Amino acid sequence: MCDACIAAASSPPTTRDIEEGTLPLLKFDASGLITAVAVDDATGDVLMVAHMNEESLARTVETGEAWYWSRSRKALWRKGETSGQLQTVAEMRIDCDQDAVVIRVRVGGDGGCCHTGRRSCFYRRVEKTEDGFHLVRDGD
Amino acid sequence: MCDACIAAASSPPTTRDIEEGTLPLLKFDASGLITAVAVDDATGDVLMVAHMNEESLARTVETGEAWYWSRSRKALWRKGETSGQLQTVAEMRIDCDQDAVVIRVRVGGDGGCCHTGRRSCFYRRVEKTEDGFHLVRDGD
Repeated sequence: MCDACIAAASSPPTTRDIEEGTLPLLKFDASGLITAVAVDDATGDVLMVAHMNEESLARTVETGEAWYWSRSRKALWRKGETSGQLQTVAEMRIDCDQDAVVIRVRVGGDGGCCHTGRRSCFYRRVEKTEDGFHLVRDGD
Repeated sequence: MCDACIAAASSPPTTRDIEEGTLPLLKFDASGLITAVAVDDATGDVLMVAHMNEESLARTVETGEAWYWSRSRKALWRKGETSGQLQTVAEMRIDCDQDAVVIRVRVGGDGGCCHTGRRSCFYRRVEKTEDGFHLVRDGD
């Protein structure tokens, strides 16, 4: 944790500190995670929703590449390490209550993101039906 | 749950069913929630990250307005009911493993979204410093 964070942590932060302040006062959940949304910097499309723990967040800031926490593998996850689909961070933003981040990224390799081979994980639209909804794949 | 969902639920879904199928096989977490990302349909900006339970998701699809689950109030939350900042859903998408949705919305009322009065909850950029990072508010 940075010096400013340690100083801030010495007294309980107020809502104003969290919402208006310039110090990171991140609200990790019970599993030590915050939600991370990756957006394609070129198109603005949402590519994926994943999670970061304190270390992956720090590495993302430090290296300028997206690092997540893989909940299935219980491990730090340098996105694209094996696929080449590295995500270079153009901008990172945090929300009002400091429990979610949005990163705008430029994707390396073949430009993909999803493990199914698609550019984005959000390749299905929700369409209302008479008794609920179904999903429609892009291109179908 | 719709008839198709009940039918699908009668045998354990395969990864292929979840990732390539057209039936909703939503993966709610231990609290019964999925992550919901609201994007401004006009600008493509991410406005907020919130959560939906099964009922709020169903109401969102049924009404075409964003309904969330408020974790702090432990209640269904029709976004904008008191503020007038209703979110009309232009498009809804679900991700590969069916545990997150993205909705593109048109915002009613004064066009705001964040409870701090701002248009988006992501009004602070993360900027790297020598010993970590700090936050920079838009306009500062």
